[in-house]
Amino acid sequence: MTQWVYIEDVADHVGEKIEIRGWMFNKRSSGKIHFLQLRDGTGFIQAIVEKSSVDEEIFQIAASLRIESSVMIEGIIREDKRSPYGYEMDVKNIEVVQIPIEDYPISKKDHGVDFLMTNRHLWLRSKKQFHILLTRNEIIRAVREFYNLKKFVLVDTPILTGSIGECSGEVFDIEYFDLGKAYLAQTGQLYLEAAAMALGKVFNLGPTFRAEKSKTRRHLTEFWMNEAEMAYYSSDDNMEFQEELVSYVVKKVLERASDHLMAIDRDLKPLEKVKAPFPRMSYDEAIKLLQKKDFDIKWGDDIGGDEETGISEEFDKPVMVYNYPRNIKAFYMQPDPSNPEVVLCNDMLAPEGYGEIIGASQRIHDPDLLVERIKEFNLPVESYDWYIDLRKHGTVPHSGFGMGIERLVAWICKLDHIREAIPFARTIYRIHP
Amino acid sequence: MTQWVYIEDVADHVGEKIEIRGWMFNKRSSGKIHFLQLRDGTGFIQAIVEKSSVDEEIFQIAASLRIESSVMIEGIIREDKRSPYGYEMDVKNIEVVQIPIEDYPISKKDHGVDFLMTNRHLWLRSKKQFHILLTRNEIIRAVREFYNLKKFVLVDTPILTGSIGECSGEVFDIEYFDLGKAYLAQTGQLYLEAAAMALGKVFNLGPTFRAEKSKTRRHLTEFWMNEAEMAYYSSDDNMEFQEELVSYVVKKVLERASDHLMAIDRDLKPLEKVKAPFPRMSYDEAIKLLQKKDFDIKWGDDIGGDEETGISEEFDKPVMVYNYPRNIKAFYMQPDPSNPEVVLCNDMLAPEGYGEIIGASQRIHDPDLLVERIKEFNLPVESYDWYIDLRKHGTVPHSGFGMGIERLVAWICKLDHIREAIPFARTIYRIHP
Repeated sequence: MTQWVYIEDVADHVGEKIEIRGWMFNKRSSGKIHFLQLRDGTGFIQAIVEKSSVDEEIFQIAASLRIESSVMIEGIIREDKRSPYGYEMDVKNIEVVQIPIEDYPISKKDHGVDFLMTNRHLWLRSKKQFHILLTRNEIIRAVREFYNLKKFVLVDTPILTGSIGECSGEVFDIEYFDLGKAYLAQTGQLYLEAAAMALGKVFNLGPTFRAEKSKTRRHLTEFWMNEAEMAYYSSDDNMEFQEELVSYVVKKVLERASDHLMAIDRDLKPLEKVKAPFPRMSYDEAIKLLQKKDFDIKWGDDIGGDEETGISEEFDKPVMVYNYPRNIKAFYMQPDPSNPEVVLCNDMLAPEGYGEIIGASQRIHDPDLLVERIKEFNLPVESYDWYIDLRKHGTVPHSGFGMGIERLVAWICKLDHIREAIPFARTIYRIHP
Repeated sequence: MTQWVYIEDVADHVGEKIEIRGWMFNKRSSGKIHFLQLRDGTGFIQAIVEKSSVDEEIFQIAASLRIESSVMIEGIIREDKRSPYGYEMDVKNIEVVQIPIEDYPISKKDHGVDFLMTNRHLWLRSKKQFHILLTRNEIIRAVREFYNLKKFVLVDTPILTGSIGECSGEVFDIEYFDLGKAYLAQTGQLYLEAAAMALGKVFNLGPTFRAEKSKTRRHLTEFWMNEAEMAYYSSDDNMEFQEELVSYVVKKVLERASDHLMAIDRDLKPLEKVKAPFPRMSYDEAIKLLQKKDFDIKWGDDIGGDEETGISEEFDKPVMVYNYPRNIKAFYMQPDPSNPEVVLCNDMLAPEGYGEIIGASQRIHDPDLLVERIKEFNLPVESYDWYIDLRKHGTVPHSGFGMGIERLVAWICKLDHIREAIPFARTIYRIHP
């Protein structure tokens, strides 16, 4: 039996007769030759069927193949420097698994976004989506690898929760047996804080839900987020850690996925500059910069998407904006001892106009102050009973952050819209497929 | 400034003065000496405060420390073969972060499960939970590592879905904007099948939801599951892959977490036997075995938890039971060509009575047969439009499986109940903390 080999491994089989199992995504033909473009999920290769070197039956089979036919093809691998893939196959035999029973709906012509999203289950087969998903795979692998290197413990936080994290934006709720409503987590932070008091340095990486009616290119209703929480970390320690994390991820992606990035025409040069330390700018400085750039903004206003773009385009690395006014940030952030009107926090804004990829802060560790702030924000103190409890039994200063995985993917791949950064995007208009 | 060192790294600092930042979880005292048991989330160490070698103030501080006090302690590291931790610290200085403002509720005496689960945010600090969570961390790391080695692509499947996977058991639903009901995914399998046609070999690892009213020691309403899907894999290929995966994970856990397993008195010998190949037994053979063991079961019945225990206790490795009757398995499973009354599938049962950890099958790839089975199971064909679509555009034989992470953790750690295998368990009676 001929050996089944994945296309990514054909370089190890030059001169050998092997079998490729995959799909034909394109074909060019003349009277005497068929050029079959094959993919198998690991790569692409051209398989050549010459009338003079196969049985007539095989040549006719090649003629009958239509786009997305599934085939098992035997042939001999040959290096070919002219081929974009570096190797070609001289076909000896073709076994058809299926010739599609309907015309493949996705062609090379421009389709509307809605059409492509409706056919997402097929659109995934397109080259650009292939390269994005392989890059996403390497990004998440690098994130997890970094936490392993730094000896963090994975703590998967619950999705179904009674108490609500940030209480900002809207949340999805469900009926939970006889216990009333449960909510889909907007963050695992509160749980990670509990775990950090047990395990020191902890992280999660899981799906997160926001029922916001945002329709921007930066928002999904379901997205993946990495959060980390570190006992005894100050806000400065936190910023240093974030720099290291993002630098590591970009470095590893450049090592392992630059072929994929180049295949989608991503210029690598801006990514090569992403090395710690990153520029830092206080909120005060950011407001002055934005005012100088004619943004209509004053001290105390939140920094929105357009403003983030305005700041980040001044730098060729991610920039960290720190110490925002307390009134525009979450209740749990630690006040700056030198200026209680601001809190010890930072956002990290990605360059090239991508804006916020990380939101971070030192957390309040004093139980009385925490309760005071919960009340000030009109949140129900009783929902935070166990969270407050953490501050009663050996509370310590601690810091953490959340990093949006799809925003990271969108920036690294330089995508126009975040919907291509996740296998099956969920937006306010889309739950299908 | 004295260097902050994690307890796991003290071996590199013997003879040096360092600082440990953590919590005091226990204390023994005499008139002249305090033995402080410290933890910092990375390990445990005894810090010794001798009246004769510190200022009186420091000695008094040590005297005042209560369980779970948070402290930053300076001292000199010394190797001590008599100590269970191998090293001790001779204390020079103590900075108290907080002496708990309430008595720590978890003592050494036996608490009821409900009390411990209500205090899960603190219970995580207990030694057994520490060791379980660190083992869980290594288990998940090894699972992901194996997929990377095998060049699988991570495809995170959506939690919010329109169509429903298995339709078995009950599902949680939410109102999704103007689109009606959405469901929390019971499986990502259907999405992975789409992705396998694009990327060949894919996997996910994420939270999964079952609104079943099961109250067994094997059930959670929210649990983590790893699923994989492989294009062009037969049911036999699938079983071989599962064997390799589970063998790899157990091997890596033994390499990296055996200290944690031994600390919770897990006998390592049974785990050391977990090496591929695993015994295989057809459903027919399993029924005969159970009948011989006096179970009240006949051909066509499902194999429940007690029966799984009955089978798995016959083997000292995981056992794979294959080819169940079609009527007790899901609609999408491929019939056995040699006997259409059974389907090409397998469950993997963990030894030592733990039962099912994997459910697997070859999937139907013929579009007509798939539609026929959907109707036979009284499922709405229109909900499966895109899933059927996959069979029209280059369908291929393919196989996959789902592995319950907490069941894997419970078995490897030999836990009595699955609720300790996840940081914050969700059961039908518990959504808090």
